[in-house]
Amino acid sequence: MATSHRITLAHRPQGQVALSDFRTDEVELPPLQDGEFLVNVEYLSIDPTIRGWMSYDTYLPKIAKGEVIRSAGAGEVVESRNPRFPVGARVFGMPGWQDHAVLNGGVPIPEGVTYEQALSVFGITGLTAYVGLEDIGKPQPGETVVVSGAAGGVGSIAGQIAKIKGCRVVGVAGSPEKCRWVVDELGFDDCIDYHAEGIGAGLSRTCPDGIDVYFDNVGGETLNEVLARINDHARIILCGAISQYDTDTPAPGPVNLINAIPRRALLKGFIILDHMDRARDASQAMGMWMAEGKLQVRTYVREGLESAPAALQDLFTGANVGKTLVRV
Amino acid sequence: MATSHRITLAHRPQGQVALSDFRTDEVELPPLQDGEFLVNVEYLSIDPTIRGWMSYDTYLPKIAKGEVIRSAGAGEVVESRNPRFPVGARVFGMPGWQDHAVLNGGVPIPEGVTYEQALSVFGITGLTAYVGLEDIGKPQPGETVVVSGAAGGVGSIAGQIAKIKGCRVVGVAGSPEKCRWVVDELGFDDCIDYHAEGIGAGLSRTCPDGIDVYFDNVGGETLNEVLARINDHARIILCGAISQYDTDTPAPGPVNLINAIPRRALLKGFIILDHMDRARDASQAMGMWMAEGKLQVRTYVREGLESAPAALQDLFTGANVGKTLVRV
Repeated sequence: MATSHRITLAHRPQGQVALSDFRTDEVELPPLQDGEFLVNVEYLSIDPTIRGWMSYDTYLPKIAKGEVIRSAGAGEVVESRNPRFPVGARVFGMPGWQDHAVLNGGVPIPEGVTYEQALSVFGITGLTAYVGLEDIGKPQPGETVVVSGAAGGVGSIAGQIAKIKGCRVVGVAGSPEKCRWVVDELGFDDCIDYHAEGIGAGLSRTCPDGIDVYFDNVGGETLNEVLARINDHARIILCGAISQYDTDTPAPGPVNLINAIPRRALLKGFIILDHMDRARDASQAMGMWMAEGKLQVRTYVREGLESAPAALQDLFTGANVGKTLVRV
Repeated sequence: MATSHRITLAHRPQGQVALSDFRTDEVELPPLQDGEFLVNVEYLSIDPTIRGWMSYDTYLPKIAKGEVIRSAGAGEVVESRNPRFPVGARVFGMPGWQDHAVLNGGVPIPEGVTYEQALSVFGITGLTAYVGLEDIGKPQPGETVVVSGAAGGVGSIAGQIAKIKGCRVVGVAGSPEKCRWVVDELGFDDCIDYHAEGIGAGLSRTCPDGIDVYFDNVGGETLNEVLARINDHARIILCGAISQYDTDTPAPGPVNLINAIPRRALLKGFIILDHMDRARDASQAMGMWMAEGKLQVRTYVREGLESAPAALQDLFTGANVGKTLVRV
């Protein structure tokens, strides 16, 4: 009988998520039923949406108190009663924050793909960037594309795809180091350090001809300032609103949404679970672009299951550069 | 040589539009050039967008001080150097607020269509309702459709089309009389008198299963309260924001826009000038629905060119029921 070390929800966060909102425990896992398999969890994907699940019913019900923290992750099958996931298989799924998990489904990780790749460029993160930009943003060569959260997992990939599509790409990030990375290493045309410059001034400086596509990972004031500067037929990809997830004092709503009427703009929210049929296209494109040296992926890895709560906090303090993972 | 009595822009409105923002004058019109024709203006279309043109560059440049107030209208050709618009032809175009206008283009009004119809159900107003609902809203039978400005020109038609499409339709309007009209005469399923009930409470009462499509003519608080109650894959047609046009103190932005992400909602602004290719489809559908008794159209007509400024004010005080016109 297997034991799992788990991190569960102790309290619903009030404002910023605190380490005391989590509890660590150890449980005996039940014996496998037909169709189930036991995974030795190797990596966890630390995503802003987890913060939402801790507090609110969103597109999924909120996490119950005492329940393991819901999370994507990947690992190796160590016991199996499911012929599709035999012992030794590597699998991506939703194990939650624990070191062993009983699952009944997942996605096999192809040979040659590392766990870190499976949880970033070839996983939900890459797919989110791909679907948001390709299917909603539909960027055309020469257009100006703004990406917020530009140094994060999704934003860093979305901006590079926009460059591959021939766009002028402006990032928005929270430090000089992040801005240097996206411009010098990833090839963005420019980057706004919003703490230093202010988002309105930064957008006016970097987008003198207006904004055609905005990949929004942050919401709040940034979205409002973008709406003031959109071109006709602009497309705004409502992917995330990280500025609003970890606070009890939400930013004012975007008064400039009214500008969407004369500018004939589209705003579209999406949840990647609706778009799993695009996973194969996305992975093929990502693999090709990586092979051509056009797409770089960086991970920010914290060590040990016990570091998961701090890794989640890092998303909101901005400590991460690239896709945030925990190596269990 | 023809004389035109005109209403021009004297001052840019500060907050609510005032009668003193307008000036009346009389000018001699220049002789016709090739391609031009002189129209004896019979009706003017009084639209909320005129208020925007008086103050702001929007999708068209703002009206210059001293310039005639830009406006759609219709009348009869009384002199012509354009073979497509011979003397006696009836034409829809952009004459502005004046009793005679030199035009070089327009749309002929078919026989059997009255001026009032040409400026409402078969004109820009009907086309706006049709394109917004059909091409953006795409309502499905059984869905809940909310229409604000429900007793106005566009809203009253949009709601009836949604009923024809088999939807449950809830109007939002500003008086008990308007609500009675849209429910008892137009066949809406319910109506919220937002002054009496409050918009949030009214939406909760009338839309217990959430909102699938919202035809937004008003913006402001109504849009925000709708966003709090949308269903998955909701479509929001950003057609107008009349609550925000005639004020110096805009409402707060919609904090609930963040809900568009988990609900996978679409918001789309549009300007009807981009969709003139849909005019024939719209007119055919409207004609058929009127013949079948499924579509009623009401006009609110003020008399005399000099009443145009007050007719514009009526849009913002809510005095109008149905499409607002001036009979010149």
